[in-house]
Amino acid sequence: MKLLSPSPSAWRWIFSLLLAVPLLAAAAEPLPNWKDGPSKKAIESFVSAVTTEGTKDYVPPAERIAVFDNDGTLWSEQPMYFQVLFSYAEVHRLAPQHPEWKEQQPFKAVLEGDHEALAAAGMDGLMKIVGATHTGISTEAFTANAEAWLAKAVHPKSQKPFTEMVYQPMLELLAYLRANGFKTYIVSGGEVAFMRAFAEEVYGIPPEQVIGTTFVSQFQNQDGKLSILRMPKLAHNDDGPGKPESIDAIIGRRPIFAFGNSDGDLQMLQWTAAGSGKRFMGLVHHTDAKREWAYDRDSKIGKLDKALDEANAKGWTVVDMATEWAQVFPFASATNMQ
Amino acid sequence: MKLLSPSPSAWRWIFSLLLAVPLLAAAAEPLPNWKDGPSKKAIESFVSAVTTEGTKDYVPPAERIAVFDNDGTLWSEQPMYFQVLFSYAEVHRLAPQHPEWKEQQPFKAVLEGDHEALAAAGMDGLMKIVGATHTGISTEAFTANAEAWLAKAVHPKSQKPFTEMVYQPMLELLAYLRANGFKTYIVSGGEVAFMRAFAEEVYGIPPEQVIGTTFVSQFQNQDGKLSILRMPKLAHNDDGPGKPESIDAIIGRRPIFAFGNSDGDLQMLQWTAAGSGKRFMGLVHHTDAKREWAYDRDSKIGKLDKALDEANAKGWTVVDMATEWAQVFPFASATNMQ
Repeated sequence: MKLLSPSPSAWRWIFSLLLAVPLLAAAAEPLPNWKDGPSKKAIESFVSAVTTEGTKDYVPPAERIAVFDNDGTLWSEQPMYFQVLFSYAEVHRLAPQHPEWKEQQPFKAVLEGDHEALAAAGMDGLMKIVGATHTGISTEAFTANAEAWLAKAVHPKSQKPFTEMVYQPMLELLAYLRANGFKTYIVSGGEVAFMRAFAEEVYGIPPEQVIGTTFVSQFQNQDGKLSILRMPKLAHNDDGPGKPESIDAIIGRRPIFAFGNSDGDLQMLQWTAAGSGKRFMGLVHHTDAKREWAYDRDSKIGKLDKALDEANAKGWTVVDMATEWAQVFPFASATNMQ
Repeated sequence: MKLLSPSPSAWRWIFSLLLAVPLLAAAAEPLPNWKDGPSKKAIESFVSAVTTEGTKDYVPPAERIAVFDNDGTLWSEQPMYFQVLFSYAEVHRLAPQHPEWKEQQPFKAVLEGDHEALAAAGMDGLMKIVGATHTGISTEAFTANAEAWLAKAVHPKSQKPFTEMVYQPMLELLAYLRANGFKTYIVSGGEVAFMRAFAEEVYGIPPEQVIGTTFVSQFQNQDGKLSILRMPKLAHNDDGPGKPESIDAIIGRRPIFAFGNSDGDLQMLQWTAAGSGKRFMGLVHHTDAKREWAYDRDSKIGKLDKALDEANAKGWTVVDMATEWAQVFPFASATNMQ
């Protein structure tokens, strides 16, 4: 009968245990690398508002969808999008199988490190490079290539693996949101399989919560050997308006929390803001010329202009990296990145 | 110090409580409407194998992806796909705004209930009807239309709401898998927003785990009024090879469990089967002319021919609805559906 009627001391013990739980939880500071300031305050008050049952702002866990851009929001994007650096590395790795590249632009420019010729090749040139390095193979083979590069390549400035060029405060934010019942998504212009090669290990975001740019794919069955072949044709460009479009198509629910860093995130932030009830819209503002990079309105990469104006006009959270983040990367920033 | 050193009686109580948990869990029969037979046995032995830690077949929860076709697998698809019946109803509802439809095929045929003319219009005609009833409006507006129809329409044979034409044993299977740490997905040729209008309430499957056929969509910002406009152009046909393609693009992980009922599910089952480790592949075989419908190789809807041969050849689970399901629908089947 002990199961039905525990001794009084048992009850006391259970009770003390129950009391202890919230104290223990509170004891662990969830956002150690967010300095006390407007951004940390906005994040914490939003999360506490939507997770407090019985209040008008309460949001049930199933609807706690949080979306994050990747390049410039979760990891760095300077001096060039890391996926583009991967593409260049792949051109070098694949060159022996493509002798014609020695004379063929934009590949010639990549092989010779001819930045002017690369710049001249523009977006068309880049798409040729991405096509040649990202398609014509199976998802499995592509993922293996991305993993191999991520395992050995280092960032030109920090000399650290690219998977360490992630923002420690944002890792803490992702964990804090998940601990509060949020489902955290990446919604990025990056190609989806490239991001999935590291998102689960680095961000704790499983493949099914990574949304990005996609190529048309084709199921192949060659004498019972099955594969998904990546075709050299964009299926969806997950940038700008493409972000709310993919959120609607893949998540099917409007986020209540969105974080970006550039004009390519504006429509995702607008879409999040336009929902009913309490919402959170945030921008990482790259203001830290010493520990990371300082850029916004005039930057070729991660241009932040219209979105910054709208954030200021509408009172969205704009994170001043230089003053609000205690540490930028998981490693102590010794290097000056500029 | 009570927290650190509970009384011996407290320990005894906690211990007895821990012991009690598995017993309580085992007490509840998870699949009451699956009769003891090969299918129930195959399902239970698979789930126990992949969820038993420390065994060679163990699969961590994050990788327990289960995919289900919808039409004919989770709910009925006779005498016609329910979404097509919705399209016809929408043509009637919208007719006053389209006087031209009175003289214009295939709309004229729908309005006059002219089955021969409809059949003659074929797939092109059907796509015109689907286009006119599923696109040119926002996802929000379309979802409202689907919800309104589902709330009042009844099945022509059973006179029950379509959301009750779901298979009770499959509802139990979905719950059983989720209780064992599986993430349950719909991967169906049905249009994704149509399925999302009822999947969460009826199947317990949230919108982000519903994958289906999609139309190209376009983010709209009209003077700050935002919407996602559905364009009359297919983005992805989620049938046949389209199923492993969308699984790869959206889930990014290969399922270990797949259930279908027709040749349109064959590639999804093959893709699931081709993974390493233990897998489960199942087919609902419509053998119950009295309580539901009996059809397979020669059926216009839900044709099951190649997939049945492959299932038999490879020892996949084929559910004999007539003999293996105690009850077919949540309601007691009185009506003879034929």
